[in-house]
Formats: sequence, structure tokens, C-alpha cells
Amino acid sequence: MRLPDFYLVLKSDIEKIEHELEKSVATEQPVLNKAALHLLQAGGKRIRPIFVLLCAKFGAYDIEKVKHIASALEMIHMGSLVHDDVIDDAELRRGRQTIKAKWDNRVAMYTGDFLFARAVEKASFLQNGEVHQILSKAMIDMCVGEIEQIRDQFNWQQHLKTYLRRIKRKTALLIAVSCQLGALSADVPPSIQRQLYYYGYNVGMSFQIMDDVLDFIGTEEELGKPAGSDLLQGNITLPALYAMQKDDELKKEVIRLANGDEVVSVRAIIEKVKTSGGIEYAKKLSKKYLDKAYDSLDGLPNRSAKKSLVTIASYIGKRTY
Amino acid sequence: MRLPDFYLVLKSDIEKIEHELEKSVATEQPVLNKAALHLLQAGGKRIRPIFVLLCAKFGAYDIEKVKHIASALEMIHMGSLVHDDVIDDAELRRGRQTIKAKWDNRVAMYTGDFLFARAVEKASFLQNGEVHQILSKAMIDMCVGEIEQIRDQFNWQQHLKTYLRRIKRKTALLIAVSCQLGALSADVPPSIQRQLYYYGYNVGMSFQIMDDVLDFIGTEEELGKPAGSDLLQGNITLPALYAMQKDDELKKEVIRLANGDEVVSVRAIIEKVKTSGGIEYAKKLSKKYLDKAYDSLDGLPNRSAKKSLVTIASYIGKRTY
Repeated sequence: MRLPDFYLVLKSDIEKIEHELEKSVATEQPVLNKAALHLLQAGGKRIRPIFVLLCAKFGAYDIEKVKHIASALEMIHMGSLVHDDVIDDAELRRGRQTIKAKWDNRVAMYTGDFLFARAVEKASFLQNGEVHQILSKAMIDMCVGEIEQIRDQFNWQQHLKTYLRRIKRKTALLIAVSCQLGALSADVPPSIQRQLYYYGYNVGMSFQIMDDVLDFIGTEEELGKPAGSDLLQGNITLPALYAMQKDDELKKEVIRLANGDEVVSVRAIIEKVKTSGGIEYAKKLSKKYLDKAYDSLDGLPNRSAKKSLVTIASYIGKRTY
Repeated sequence: MRLPDFYLVLKSDIEKIEHELEKSVATEQPVLNKAALHLLQAGGKRIRPIFVLLCAKFGAYDIEKVKHIASALEMIHMGSLVHDDVIDDAELRRGRQTIKAKWDNRVAMYTGDFLFARAVEKASFLQNGEVHQILSKAMIDMCVGEIEQIRDQFNWQQHLKTYLRRIKRKTALLIAVSCQLGALSADVPPSIQRQLYYYGYNVGMSFQIMDDVLDFIGTEEELGKPAGSDLLQGNITLPALYAMQKDDELKKEVIRLANGDEVVSVRAIIEKVKTSGGIEYAKKLSKKYLDKAYDSLDGLPNRSAKKSLVTIASYIGKRTY
């Protein structure tokens, strides 16, 4: 993802957060330290911190205050990724070995727990009970989302609604909360906090749908993992859901693939999903959420902060990896 | 553990916390709900909530306030148990199937995460940033303790110091924090909070050493799991540590046992540890920490609350399961 202009404006503050994250994952326990640092250095788009910063611009922006919230949100995200990798038995993440691959499941488990705890510790610098309420509620929703994903795995009868509810909990809510807490930490009035929350929610939905599209159309190099990974794990995302509903033969093939039938080729299925119209359908829905995100910004003051939010949203809409 | 008299005094408040815990683990997601409830109904001694309540008695005791802290601490404890069971691949806990056995590792992972998040949510009712700071620090220490336990597993050269540092992080600190936060939630002055923290720390050390003793001398029925479980998992606790330092032949046998040599009998090793003097040594050290716990209470006001803390400590010292 090449950085757009608004990113350059935030550059020094994002570097501060990077530094804050490095400090936060530090611990005297060498294994924990190395594992968390490994995860941090694997990079990532730092989408959540960016939203925190941009939304704080609607109020009394103070990087020394907002940096705690920004790094807390990134650590919650990181913690959930490590735990996902344990569950998915993943070897690669962003092209690098996962913690469970480089160390083992036990280290991955406690690195995740450690990052969650550090996030709470970070958030407590703000001395604001509401922050913890909002943050913990988001973490609870993420757990519910993960359990839903487990329940829906290999469930070939699911509907669009099931998919949308799942990605809401898995992704959109944490981005919504990033926006809300960024604003809250800058004493933005509650009504504007709410608008920014809905903006974040819609951007998050749009973002996750695009992510699921990219799992079909991206190259292994771009994705940092093989294409079609979701399908192989029995996770039915929007393009496949659409394709399977249109083509019963394809549905049978996908089920055989997920059941480990080696005769079925992932490549062939990916091709079929691509030509089914599922990609276009998903892109259209992603765009719809993006439009809703723009709408959520209606009437907001601060024109320059608003412009940045529009830019980053449209950026997400166009991203190719 | 039969309930002593002081427990009866707290009975209605403990029931309130039990009810609070039931409410807290409730969620619309049925699997998560059932898994967390299963864990809750497996029982447990509710040691941490009891310490929270007793220490709140030193100040402006208000069950409606302190119940949030008490249930938060029990949920952190529960969450850490579920995650431990994933790591230890345990089938039984307190004589009941573990979550990972009844459902699977994935459900156990997110049930643990869910309980941690709920604990933070609970704690936020107090609207006090210091609570979150203390709580998150304790969670971080627990993770460090778990990683240390992994590192020390199958390490046959470890010293008493290593063992003590491990159980401090694994157990004692959360009990110390239970005492501290109980007091803090009742606006007890900081100097008394500190005393209660040290009391909790020492009781926690004493408690864990006894727990490790019971793993050798308890019956499967009392323990809810087979005796010698620690050793089979390569966790070297105090009685074994002592015995192995005295008897090089035994040490070799323990190593063979932990390496899966089926000729070596767990029963025979347990018997040797029992006759090595390791049990007596550990009991003596446990008693020493108990005495330190009593000392920590020196000069505290409120005679009746103090008496309860002495009673529960001595109770822990005498417990047989």
C-alpha cells in the first residue's frame, strides 16, 4: 500500500506510535519480548492507529495523549492475529513466519494474552473509565465474531446476512471503535463521536469485503500467503458465497476441496469464482459501504480532518493489496 | 474445602458474586455462553473474590461496588485456566471435562479471550484508571509467568529461586492484587493497601506451594485429575525439585518418565518424592510464607476483618485438597 499524501502529514506522529508500540512490547522476559517484536516488525498497515489519529483531529488533538489509544488498538489487533494463527494453524502471516511457526502454540497463546493486557495498560493512561468500557466491549464482540466464524466454517448453507454479521464483529467494530476512541481522547462531543463511529464501521465493512476479494485476486507475493487460503480453511467469504449460490456444480467442488479432495484444484476454483461475477458483486457492496462511510461524515466541522477521512476511505476502496 | 465460619458471614455476598459471574458470562452467542457457563459451574474455591471482599472490609465496604472487582478477578483467573488447558492439552479440570475437551481448542481460545475482556469491562464499572493499571500489570505478569513455566519445563537444572519466581507470577501476584483492589475499591488508604498486597502475595506463595504438594499427596478424586500430573508434564515443582537434588538416581528416573519412558512408574516416583523429605520441606516453606502473611497484617486497624484474614490464611495452610 503506497502512502497517500494525508499519510505524510501524519508521518511523524505515526513514527511516534511505532516507537510507542516498540516500548510497549518490551518486557524483561526474552522469549515474550522477541515474539512480540517479531510480530511488530512484520509490519502491517497500521490502519487502526491512523483512524485514531485522524479522528482525534476533530477535537483537542494531543499526540502525547492519543498515542496511548492508538497503540492500544494496534496491540488488540495484533493479539487477535496471533490467536487466529494458532487456531488456523497458519505458518505465514504477511510473508513472515507466524509466532506459532517460529516458536510454538504456547508462546503464541501467551504473546496474544500479553498484547491484550498491554493494550489495557496503555489505555489506562487516559484515566477514563469509558475508554475501557468501549474497548472491552469491542474485544468481546471480536471473540463472538471468532466463534461465529468457527460455527460458520464449512457451513455451505449460509446467507449474505451471516457473512456480514461475521465481518462486522471480526473487523468493522474495532475500526469503528478506533474512530470513536480517537475522538473521545480529544474531547470531541458525543454526537460527533457517534458519526465517526459509523464512519469507521462502514469503512471497516468495506475494507474487509475488499480483503476477502483480494484473497481471490491477489498474488501470493502481494498477500504474503497463498491465494484462496480462506476457502481452503472452509471460510466462505463473499465472492465464493455469491459464486456458489449461482453455480451448484462449483458449490460441490468447493465442498470437496475443503474436505481435502486432492483432485480438486484450488486454482480452478479461484478461476471459477473470478468469472462468476462474485468479485464484481463484492466490489460493488464494498463501494456501497464506502458511500455510507462518506455519508456518515455529513455536517462534520473541521474540513481538513474530514478530507483526510474521505481520502483514506477512497484509498481503501481502490487498494489492490 | 469445607467452609470455615468467616465464610458464612460472607455467604450472601459470595452468592451475589456468583450471580454476578453468571450474568457476566452471559452472551447471545450460544457456544461462548455454554462454554463459559460450563467453566463457571465447574466451581472452584473462589479464593480471589473472597480476598477481594475481606480486604474491602478495611474501608467503606459496599458490595455493589466491590462485586465488580471480585468478579473481574475471578474471570481473569478462569480465563487463564482455559488457556492453560489448551496449552497443557488437559482433558479434565476439577473432575469435569475441560472446554478444549468438550468443545475444542478454538472455542477454548476465544472463551479465554472473552473472559479477559469481560473482566476488563467489569472493572471499568469503578471508573478508576488505577484499577486498570493494576489489573493489566497483573495480567502481564501472569503471561510472563506462563512463558517462564514453558521455558523451565523439562529443565532439570533449575533452582529453588526459579521455582519461586515462577509461582509468584503464576499465582501469588493475582492474589496480592485481589487484596489490593478490594481495599482500593473501598477507599482504604494506600499504606494499608500495600500491607494487604503483601499479605496476599505471601498467602499466594503459601497457597501455590501447598497446591504443588497436593499434586503429590492428593488422591485423583480430591484433585479432580490424576496425581503426579505436574511431573508428567515436565513441570518441576518444589517437592520434586527437592527430591531430585537429593537423589541423583531419582532425577534420572524423573527425566525418563517425562520423556515418555513407559517402564518408569509415576506411582513409584511419587512414592520416592514422598519419602525424600521433599513434602515436609515444601510444607515448611509454605508455612514460612504464611507466617510472613500474618506479619504483613501487623498494625492493621479493623480487628474483625483482620481476624478473617488470619483465619483464611491458616485455613489455606491446613487444607488437604
